[in-house]
Amino acid sequence: MKIIVDAMGGDYAPEVVVNGAVAAAKEYGIEIILVGNEPVVASLLKKAKYDAGGISVCHAEEVIGMSEPAAASVRKKRNSSIVVGMELVKEGKGDAFFSAGNTGAVVCAATLSLRMLPGVERPGIAIVTPTLKGISLIIDVGANIDPKPMQLLQYAIMADAYCRYILNMHDPTVGLLNIGEEDTKGTDFVKEVHELFESGSFNFIGNVEGKDLFSGKCDIIVCDGFVGNVALKVSESLAEAMQEFLKRHILSNPLGKIGALLLRQSFSRFKKDIDYSEYGGAPLLGIDGVVIIGHGRSNAKAIKNAVRVAKEEVERKFNEKILEAIRPKVV
Amino acid sequence: MKIIVDAMGGDYAPEVVVNGAVAAAKEYGIEIILVGNEPVVASLLKKAKYDAGGISVCHAEEVIGMSEPAAASVRKKRNSSIVVGMELVKEGKGDAFFSAGNTGAVVCAATLSLRMLPGVERPGIAIVTPTLKGISLIIDVGANIDPKPMQLLQYAIMADAYCRYILNMHDPTVGLLNIGEEDTKGTDFVKEVHELFESGSFNFIGNVEGKDLFSGKCDIIVCDGFVGNVALKVSESLAEAMQEFLKRHILSNPLGKIGALLLRQSFSRFKKDIDYSEYGGAPLLGIDGVVIIGHGRSNAKAIKNAVRVAKEEVERKFNEKILEAIRPKVV
Repeated sequence: MKIIVDAMGGDYAPEVVVNGAVAAAKEYGIEIILVGNEPVVASLLKKAKYDAGGISVCHAEEVIGMSEPAAASVRKKRNSSIVVGMELVKEGKGDAFFSAGNTGAVVCAATLSLRMLPGVERPGIAIVTPTLKGISLIIDVGANIDPKPMQLLQYAIMADAYCRYILNMHDPTVGLLNIGEEDTKGTDFVKEVHELFESGSFNFIGNVEGKDLFSGKCDIIVCDGFVGNVALKVSESLAEAMQEFLKRHILSNPLGKIGALLLRQSFSRFKKDIDYSEYGGAPLLGIDGVVIIGHGRSNAKAIKNAVRVAKEEVERKFNEKILEAIRPKVV
Repeated sequence: MKIIVDAMGGDYAPEVVVNGAVAAAKEYGIEIILVGNEPVVASLLKKAKYDAGGISVCHAEEVIGMSEPAAASVRKKRNSSIVVGMELVKEGKGDAFFSAGNTGAVVCAATLSLRMLPGVERPGIAIVTPTLKGISLIIDVGANIDPKPMQLLQYAIMADAYCRYILNMHDPTVGLLNIGEEDTKGTDFVKEVHELFESGSFNFIGNVEGKDLFSGKCDIIVCDGFVGNVALKVSESLAEAMQEFLKRHILSNPLGKIGALLLRQSFSRFKKDIDYSEYGGAPLLGIDGVVIIGHGRSNAKAIKNAVRVAKEEVERKFNEKILEAIRPKVV
């Protein structure tokens, strides 16, 4: 198996991407092609003292920056690591593509190069989040900010398959993110989605609210990409702010440092609970190919785990499961 | 000054509402009319041993439940505490109305009874949240889930006035909640709002993201009521989940209890940082009258603080400030 990794994507690229790729190659015994500036990446590989083989470098002259406009940069920068990497998958030279770079550009390049699975209109980004009862999957967190109701139905079907075949859940429950639980709540758009979901092939439990994102009320939460993106970023921001608030009070407390020392193990387990890098990457579902998107701030562990997520999707032939699930309902 | 308080609204009503009202009457020296089931409220007042005068009871036969459909229940239950209380304000028998009950019903009753301020099309709920740099105001968190762009402009103008005249901020900054900072980001709706904001009379700093809700990047964050409601409830849910995660790890750690004891003061200050009850109630801006909405789970302290918020709006003649600000721009 060969995973194509965008060496230039992410706030700490290329160094941490190279280190993450090295860790993944060692731990999972798979081949990796790092796409990016060849001399730079090669010297980082040398620095990482990796010589067990299995990692090669494919040169890409350009880089799409984190805040460049997605569609325009994908069209213009045909030699960027994202476009070159995606083309490698298209040509069958790799089984999956991972990038922690410009999310919009990855979505755009994936759609243009690899196209959609038959029966799926638009790709959706699914994110695994920790809850009080385990984990849940939120789709979409930003690929499709102005979707049609039918596209949310497709997201629910794909997320259901993801939970079954990748996250090993039994009969996952699906909730529709809304401002209240009652069927009559929400915008016309959400009401229309609710009606579609009622005839869905998955275990639909009805509307859920923002407060259910971390309560573990259901396994899958479906929303449009605008709301999902805001919800995700609000969560990250609050998690950081809360840690900062706590730190301030601990440091200003004379007994704080001793207390914190005694609680060191608890704090580190707590941090692990809410650490996105444990979950690695977010699958871009609906693409005719395996594409995983990483957090811009991915560290080497997140990169390694994202490669694992890609590997699992390839191994379990996940897109075939989507096709099986989506054909009878949508086509 | 007379504040009308819905004695029957909120998850812990009527007891905690009565206790909160008693605390407010004592601390702020204002008159309060509790609206609700007279015998029940009177006996709770007796139980609270409050006999200093200043609190009276107005009987209301009915109660609108927390999850009843808003518009229908306001139309049908003309003798509910929400409708009766709002009518008292309309008739000039009270200066402001507060309820921790069914938010939709309060918004609906306020709009029907008190009507909108001239130049404002729809009311918006503004919430004060803690940030790493102080506090910020988010509007709208659920009154108007499918707004027109012009209505978001009105929210920005009203929030600007609220920050200046109630929260005592100097030249508050306004951000538009979006999925990216660049002007070109977002749905057509958000782009249209962005254009309107650029010619606004307030200090518009451009788009902000979900991550800026708690970073303190700007003083005011404007969004539609659907997104704002989800963001608010996600935050509450995550804050609770994080406390629970931390508690679990502390309790499972042999040294955890000692550490937690040493950190007791830090934890309690931390809890205060993120405790909504410190901020009390959320003003329903745009109504021709003062209406404050409380969290369903309001405790007595939150009720007391909400009454304070109402008092400040009345004292500072806040609606006149809105009219001054909104007239030249919108009418």
